[in-house]
Amino acid sequence: MGWVSAPNAFMNIPATARIYDLEQPRYFGAPIYPSHAPGYFYTLHRHHERGMAEARTSASGFMYTTEHSGTHIDALCHQAEDLHLYGGREVDAGLQTPHGFTELGVETIAPLVTRGVLVDMAHHRGVGRIEAGNPIQRDELEAATHNQGVSIGEGDVVLVRTGNGALWQDPPVYLQAGGVSAGVSTWLAGRGVRAVGADNMTWDEGGVVDPDLKVTLPGHMILLVRHGIYIIENLFLEELARDQCYEFTFICLPLKLRGATGSPVRPVAIAAGE
Amino acid sequence: MGWVSAPNAFMNIPATARIYDLEQPRYFGAPIYPSHAPGYFYTLHRHHERGMAEARTSASGFMYTTEHSGTHIDALCHQAEDLHLYGGREVDAGLQTPHGFTELGVETIAPLVTRGVLVDMAHHRGVGRIEAGNPIQRDELEAATHNQGVSIGEGDVVLVRTGNGALWQDPPVYLQAGGVSAGVSTWLAGRGVRAVGADNMTWDEGGVVDPDLKVTLPGHMILLVRHGIYIIENLFLEELARDQCYEFTFICLPLKLRGATGSPVRPVAIAAGE
Amino acid sequence: MGWVSAPNAFMNIPATARIYDLEQPRYFGAPIYPSHAPGYFYTLHRHHERGMAEARTSASGFMYTTEHSGTHIDALCHQAEDLHLYGGREVDAGLQTPHGFTELGVETIAPLVTRGVLVDMAHHRGVGRIEAGNPIQRDELEAATHNQGVSIGEGDVVLVRTGNGALWQDPPVYLQAGGVSAGVSTWLAGRGVRAVGADNMTWDEGGVVDPDLKVTLPGHMILLVRHGIYIIENLFLEELARDQCYEFTFICLPLKLRGATGSPVRPVAIAAGE
Amino acid sequence: MGWVSAPNAFMNIPATARIYDLEQPRYFGAPIYPSHAPGYFYTLHRHHERGMAEARTSASGFMYTTEHSGTHIDALCHQAEDLHLYGGREVDAGLQTPHGFTELGVETIAPLVTRGVLVDMAHHRGVGRIEAGNPIQRDELEAATHNQGVSIGEGDVVLVRTGNGALWQDPPVYLQAGGVSAGVSTWLAGRGVRAVGADNMTWDEGGVVDPDLKVTLPGHMILLVRHGIYIIENLFLEELARDQCYEFTFICLPLKLRGATGSPVRPVAIAAGE
Repeated sequence: MGWVSAPNAFMNIPATARIYDLEQPRYFGAPIYPSHAPGYFYTLHRHHERGMAEARTSASGFMYTTEHSGTHIDALCHQAEDLHLYGGREVDAGLQTPHGFTELGVETIAPLVTRGVLVDMAHHRGVGRIEAGNPIQRDELEAATHNQGVSIGEGDVVLVRTGNGALWQDPPVYLQAGGVSAGVSTWLAGRGVRAVGADNMTWDEGGVVDPDLKVTLPGHMILLVRHGIYIIENLFLEELARDQCYEFTFICLPLKLRGATGSPVRPVAIAAGE
Repeated sequence: MGWVSAPNAFMNIPATARIYDLEQPRYFGAPIYPSHAPGYFYTLHRHHERGMAEARTSASGFMYTTEHSGTHIDALCHQAEDLHLYGGREVDAGLQTPHGFTELGVETIAPLVTRGVLVDMAHHRGVGRIEAGNPIQRDELEAATHNQGVSIGEGDVVLVRTGNGALWQDPPVYLQAGGVSAGVSTWLAGRGVRAVGADNMTWDEGGVVDPDLKVTLPGHMILLVRHGIYIIENLFLEELARDQCYEFTFICLPLKLRGATGSPVRPVAIAAGE
Repeated sequence: MGWVSAPNAFMNIPATARIYDLEQPRYFGAPIYPSHAPGYFYTLHRHHERGMAEARTSASGFMYTTEHSGTHIDALCHQAEDLHLYGGREVDAGLQTPHGFTELGVETIAPLVTRGVLVDMAHHRGVGRIEAGNPIQRDELEAATHNQGVSIGEGDVVLVRTGNGALWQDPPVYLQAGGVSAGVSTWLAGRGVRAVGADNMTWDEGGVVDPDLKVTLPGHMILLVRHGIYIIENLFLEELARDQCYEFTFICLPLKLRGATGSPVRPVAIAAGE
Repeated sequence: MGWVSAPNAFMNIPATARIYDLEQPRYFGAPIYPSHAPGYFYTLHRHHERGMAEARTSASGFMYTTEHSGTHIDALCHQAEDLHLYGGREVDAGLQTPHGFTELGVETIAPLVTRGVLVDMAHHRGVGRIEAGNPIQRDELEAATHNQGVSIGEGDVVLVRTGNGALWQDPPVYLQAGGVSAGVSTWLAGRGVRAVGADNMTWDEGGVVDPDLKVTLPGHMILLVRHGIYIIENLFLEELARDQCYEFTFICLPLKLRGATGSPVRPVAIAAGE
């Protein structure tokens, strides 16, 4: 990856704008949460080959993938609390079908084009990466935000960097990434953010039962079910962090996979440059 | 679909900006080019249900899809001419593998954030939609562009409206859409555009052998192989056309599907509003 | 299809034995019950090609298929009555998982090597094929069995011919096949058969609510849930019927797809010949 | 697994017959040859659940699998030598298509119902299992056959036991199984066998370049390409070996997957019993 220029920027994107690519590459063997294995697989069946009818040939393939592999966004229907989705709709056979949800599917997410904020928690802790075992707390997050000189407001997308995005090529290590505590999700929900994201597999610290909510991955319940806030996972935030780019225009365009519980995405951050 | 506001627009996107969603919805049964059938299929296997270990439950599924279903972008490796790809690289077993291409795969497409131009050819012809049988010619395209008061320049993304995007729900009719002649692709390539797109399945007029090039879908060969210009298909351009929005910031973020010949995308057009 | 000889028959299979192939061919586009579409799809991604490391090359592919496409057997877990499976086990999240059933999956079906009986109902009615609209009744089935001079006993596999197997190449017509009434399933269950089968998509007459049981496809509930009797669908019975071969050794070897609700199969009938 | 009785045996199968199940169970995570990963995956999307229209409910799923996962048979089109298949047919785009082969696909394999012979090489060597590093030689195979008191003749199916079938639950160990040398394949081809099989992943000793043929997996070329003899892999032979059952009726019914290079199968051996 690296800098991607926008040489023909139109209207409001300055010529000096820098586009940060926040998606991890997709391939079979990339890190995947165990319940979503085998994650992603692609085969090429139409090949360029000799002996075709004309000089032009066409190649194409099929992919088999969960919507939760690689860099992806969770739709609101992805999570339920006591069998209720966001907004209080009870899960029944009319809402949840073999081919997805009739409400709150990922196709209902409008394009995300909004202010984005990076909170570099690995930098704040002074570590290369935050490993599992010491979840990020609300007060740390607030302190890091303060130290970075940025504020978090309504409608923002907040990206939390754990530093694990640099380890995508090493799945067992990547899967031992640290995550946030319930307090972080609650606090962000209170700020009215539109979406959150992190450079780990599950946003939340995995495998921990929250003592108050009595559930694992509490942020998933707090954000998606209780507040209608989307979660983006497996982001690549290394370049933003390197450049100390803490504020940017964040763009994320989920595919309208009717009824699906999420979508693979390629988010970008656009920074004004100097 | 409809207007999507960006209430928290940051920096250079004005508060009055309008975001146009250019993706068609994805579901099994949507229009698909015969050689790419069955196109797209989604199943939900992890359900919200009673009797789980905790109050929070998680639902998710798998999709099986060609990269050429729905609104998508073609990577350069998608097409070859006499077994050579763009740049002159000959296709061999090191380049073309069972799991995709080692060069010119869709993961090599940088995020597209650039000036976009709509050329409304259905409007120019005074028809609801352009059907197969009367391919769009270069002179018409130039005239329409002139009438719209827009120019086409280097690095632009040019979207040609045939009016067929309104018929996505009716696959047999949609598949009878008209397309462009080879002359249009040649002319656009000469202008140095970065990508082209249309609201039909194949950009080119389907089923016609170009008399000069002796191939079907000549634009695919001219643009992808000879000039390295991407093609975006199955766009939804009705709202842009309705608003006579002919210039905009075009954003398209192809997934980095390593080695794949294309990617499903959700392009958007951002217009300044008044 | 046609006669398949067994020239090296061992032990108890006489040299004159004839093997009838009862499977329909598998390909995308074959008849499929709407709730199981797109049914079956196969792609070849590893190709024989030039430029490989050695003279020997290998080709292979992937198939994407429901276990209920083509000629297949239904496992007991395929059906439930008031959320209970055969044997009275209530369906819960421990039994029914995203990856199949922990009990009564198709892998629990022992190889079927037993006496088979064909009842040729199309012949009995004097028609080429039995179309939907006039379900096969118990008394007819008994009469046909009597006229054929065969009896049905415990452990038998009973195959009912509607004549529709000859129409596999014509999906819309094939899907209008007639089937059996609930009375037939009840009567066969009373005879203690091990499995039943037919040359149609659903064994039962499709789309009809049984007046007593108040369910569609009542035979599925009677046989699978109430009696633990397997159902085999989409058989090819034309050659057995042509030869008036009403008794045979029936062999069906379901794949041990752990937890799956059925399996594609290639049943055969072995007849002694004269 | 274990004994499976055939209580209603008809005609020529004696009541004392024993049916040996030679298929390994299928599930995601089972051993798979690296070039065929991820092998097999099954999801259940139609669930038994509350709130449906009637008391009867139906569950079903989709599998995504290579035809070379688990216990399977190789079709003749699976292998080529210098781009020629069995019978001398050269591979071209008319023969090898994106959806499989137009000749020699697995659908052309007639049901295998023939004499089977087990050669227990692990027993012959006095080891629990034959590991990679010491391929089985022709003279050993002949000696073992002789010691077992069986002959191998035209049309037989010959199953070679390495003892690795007991290790199916341990993929890394299983994949280190030993196999046969080219000499074994050549000798068996000379005997005119119809098919061969083994309880390992590749029949041949993996990773070894044959000094004469200059190819890996030479048996694949000798048997499939040069002699039209099928290969069955990943068999479960432990129970046959335990019972010293060296001759039996072998039944294997490949699915008619049009154009595919192999098929998952559930072979059985039927022995007369005493």
